[in-house]
Amino acid sequence: MGSGDKLTIIPLGGLGEIGKNMIAIKYGQEIIVIGCGIMYPEDEMLGIDVVIPDVTYLLENRDLVRAIFLTHGHEDHIGALPYVLGQLSVPVYGTKLTLALAENKLREQGREDLADFVTVKPRDVVRLGSFQVEFIRVCHSLPDSVALAIHTPVGTIVHTGDFKFDQTPVDGNPVDYYRLAQIGEAGVLALLADSTNAERSGFTLSEQAAVAKLEHVFHQAAGRIVVTTFPSSLYRIQQVFSVAARFGRKVAVVGKAIQEVVQVAQANGYLHIPPGTLIEGDQWGGIPRERLVLLTTGHQGEPLSALTRGPWSDARLNNFQPGDTVVISASPLAGNEKLVSRTIDGLCRLGADVYHENDANHISGHASQEELKLMLNLIKPTFFIPVQGAYRMLVRHAKIAMETGVPKENIFVLDNGLPLELSSKKASLLSKVAAGRVLVDGFGVGDVGNIVLRDRRQLSQDGILIVVVTINKESGQVVAGPDMVSRGFVYVREAEPLMEDAKIRVKQSLEKTGERRVTEWAAIKTNVRDILSKFLYEKTRRRPMILPIIMEV
Amino acid sequence: MGSGDKLTIIPLGGLGEIGKNMIAIKYGQEIIVIGCGIMYPEDEMLGIDVVIPDVTYLLENRDLVRAIFLTHGHEDHIGALPYVLGQLSVPVYGTKLTLALAENKLREQGREDLADFVTVKPRDVVRLGSFQVEFIRVCHSLPDSVALAIHTPVGTIVHTGDFKFDQTPVDGNPVDYYRLAQIGEAGVLALLADSTNAERSGFTLSEQAAVAKLEHVFHQAAGRIVVTTFPSSLYRIQQVFSVAARFGRKVAVVGKAIQEVVQVAQANGYLHIPPGTLIEGDQWGGIPRERLVLLTTGHQGEPLSALTRGPWSDARLNNFQPGDTVVISASPLAGNEKLVSRTIDGLCRLGADVYHENDANHISGHASQEELKLMLNLIKPTFFIPVQGAYRMLVRHAKIAMETGVPKENIFVLDNGLPLELSSKKASLLSKVAAGRVLVDGFGVGDVGNIVLRDRRQLSQDGILIVVVTINKESGQVVAGPDMVSRGFVYVREAEPLMEDAKIRVKQSLEKTGERRVTEWAAIKTNVRDILSKFLYEKTRRRPMILPIIMEV
Repeated sequence: MGSGDKLTIIPLGGLGEIGKNMIAIKYGQEIIVIGCGIMYPEDEMLGIDVVIPDVTYLLENRDLVRAIFLTHGHEDHIGALPYVLGQLSVPVYGTKLTLALAENKLREQGREDLADFVTVKPRDVVRLGSFQVEFIRVCHSLPDSVALAIHTPVGTIVHTGDFKFDQTPVDGNPVDYYRLAQIGEAGVLALLADSTNAERSGFTLSEQAAVAKLEHVFHQAAGRIVVTTFPSSLYRIQQVFSVAARFGRKVAVVGKAIQEVVQVAQANGYLHIPPGTLIEGDQWGGIPRERLVLLTTGHQGEPLSALTRGPWSDARLNNFQPGDTVVISASPLAGNEKLVSRTIDGLCRLGADVYHENDANHISGHASQEELKLMLNLIKPTFFIPVQGAYRMLVRHAKIAMETGVPKENIFVLDNGLPLELSSKKASLLSKVAAGRVLVDGFGVGDVGNIVLRDRRQLSQDGILIVVVTINKESGQVVAGPDMVSRGFVYVREAEPLMEDAKIRVKQSLEKTGERRVTEWAAIKTNVRDILSKFLYEKTRRRPMILPIIMEV
Repeated sequence: MGSGDKLTIIPLGGLGEIGKNMIAIKYGQEIIVIGCGIMYPEDEMLGIDVVIPDVTYLLENRDLVRAIFLTHGHEDHIGALPYVLGQLSVPVYGTKLTLALAENKLREQGREDLADFVTVKPRDVVRLGSFQVEFIRVCHSLPDSVALAIHTPVGTIVHTGDFKFDQTPVDGNPVDYYRLAQIGEAGVLALLADSTNAERSGFTLSEQAAVAKLEHVFHQAAGRIVVTTFPSSLYRIQQVFSVAARFGRKVAVVGKAIQEVVQVAQANGYLHIPPGTLIEGDQWGGIPRERLVLLTTGHQGEPLSALTRGPWSDARLNNFQPGDTVVISASPLAGNEKLVSRTIDGLCRLGADVYHENDANHISGHASQEELKLMLNLIKPTFFIPVQGAYRMLVRHAKIAMETGVPKENIFVLDNGLPLELSSKKASLLSKVAAGRVLVDGFGVGDVGNIVLRDRRQLSQDGILIVVVTINKESGQVVAGPDMVSRGFVYVREAEPLMEDAKIRVKQSLEKTGERRVTEWAAIKTNVRDILSKFLYEKTRRRPMILPIIMEV
């Protein structure tokens, strides 16, 4: 490649949203990708399981893509691997725990065959064409997290991954300040940094702060203790085992997702369970309540779902007695506040003592404002690009960068699909590439679009009314019906007069149009829909979906 | 009535939930009711507009009900009047502003005819049979809020209404400490107190604290300022007008709900708009952006809905320009955090500066823990009953009462429908009465039950597939169909092979059952449903509602 080759940063996910992190970096005819995450669906994405990045850009440039680099083992950074690797066969680089968790993801989907994994350690440097990718230890809520320093002919790009500056990390491994400072001193072209907590002032609490809270709870608890957390909060899981052992309690792990993480982490040496503390399998029936800890999580990583009444509840967890204690060791995912609130209420009604984190004392895995400034001051980048956060967080992070002295014109709040081209002195925006959200519903990847979602929304609000008539195709006469069936609209037994009245109106309208031909059925349907829609809105102030079906005999 | 008559407190709403506050108090053959509020629907109540209390108990005892007493003019205390007064014709007592807002509620539903209103002032005492009901001024987020002291032959009951101890209230009217203390000193049988902020430590900020924030924003703002708040936050509305006038800006009020509240409050002397500050009607097109304030709210009291893209958006509000400022002067309703977050993101993308309250500095209208203790120490009740809050808040409030010296055995965390009978020395629980939630959807009050909601839930997740066949009623032969129509399941044009395949399976199943009689159609439908359900789950991992319809000719 000539010295005129440009370096381009192409965000494919995680900008202006929380999750599905993915950034492509292109130099000459080579592309590397950082992260391959999922996002959980937003409220209006009814029925959707997960959301993955649109990788059209990578598929269109499939010959250029050299590798995917992972910074750590959380869903929003590794969860889309089973989908993406199925379309794009490239090696994946990451630390030992990260790759063990990534392998677990592939196994869940029955796609272990896709794993072409290369294990690295902090301070390792991978040479791949023009790129030299260095792994630098950072702290987060699970071990083996790294930032990336990507050395290119144009300059060095630092991507922080998810990070916090934990001064007393649970595993004793602090951030590699020396390498970050050294790389910063040598000169960094651009910093891409985690914006999750850009709105939070001060410093994030150390993961160690959770120990004191757990000890307090264990001192107070008379009966069973249930601790619910994210399966991804591996340090928290470690602390539950350690504290339980000190208090002479045994721990049962309940729920598939957390069992798998515990197994993977233990097998790889990242979780140290004191001997005799873990109860294997479901053998916790005989343990006295005052000796028992249940460590649990729930569906889709939502810590509370196992404790609720829904399809994901676990009856064995839910036989609470007064004196039992529940620790919700996780802050609610955005949008789940009501679920959390209702669940805590339900537990209180059962007589359980409930300890839950509120926003104020939540121990986050992400750097707060003062730590973001520290990162900026260590790296001293020429250009700054906030990543990993809702748009307002990126904007806030940009302001923080300005406060540390990065010139305003060198800060770029990008968006998914909006590439930034860098030379050693200049940055310029390129035109947009494909990027967006691909919705996964069951086996369907990307087949649920706006029309299907719009229909689900309408159905969810006022239900559906189906009108069926059978018409003789020669005469155009109605030979059966109209029959009406509704679901989610009104409770039919109580609404019979309404439905009879509606039927009469449809009949009248069909009689008027009885002479029309088959080619005009679309118009007949529209007519039936309009008449019923107006009538039902007048009578009920509801707008069910109305679906006329004409059968011909 | 003999001296042996008992006093009974019957909670009909607001215990174990946020909203639809209603408490009945019975002595001998007389009942009075405090509050008549609505609640906004929870997430899983798809398509529901509002939730009102189940007043079966009051209707069964209609001859005993003497009056409804209102503490202040918020939806969760007055919103159900149009529904309840339609079934129960009783006078309603309240202060001037409260009744003006209540009248507005009736007018909205076209039911002004139901108003039998009696206006009272703080320190007034209403004698009604054995009850003497006294109105005592408290502070809240709107003027004219009162607590009630209900003097009965058994003893005095104090109900706080919604309150805070604002030491610098916007209208200069602090809590009537003297009457509260005097009533407390004379002896109070039971205190029923607002638990909304029982989980919040310290004191709630004065409403005055919002002024400094507004002034800061007005100092910074170059362009248009949009302030969005709850229509119920009348003090906040007052402050926006006052600050705008000081900064030489004019205020347009946008949105029906807030326009009505402004009109009612101004007409009754509770809102003082500096001359020349209010822009009448929609005449704000010609005002320069730097002189303009838009004061807005949205659908169902959700301050943000006017600023979102949905059906409740207002195009004239949404032409933001860089330099414009948005002040979200309200904390999000529980469950709306995501909407708020998305809206702020959208505004940031448009270049607006956004100021929003986070939990930490939110100016609430409700007493925090130290204020709850102050109320308990003023009233010194024999019995304590926390009201108005989710169950965990009631439990927390009970603990606070214990800290102030109320004996544990004198504290009762009740539930809707669970009556407590009081004598001067003893309290005992009675058996449950009817109480619960009545869902309002359009004109339908209580006609949407669990089946309809369950159907809406299923429809919202995976949509519906309708299978229609026409069968000859003599021969049992299929003469038309099966036809299939789906909505919200898959995008049909892309799923044709799947649908064709499904159709073949239905046909095969119908051929097998072709000889059966009409009486067996239920079995045929079940069979079709089972076959399709299994087939579609195997192919798609989705579970649409399957609705077979058989037409006979």
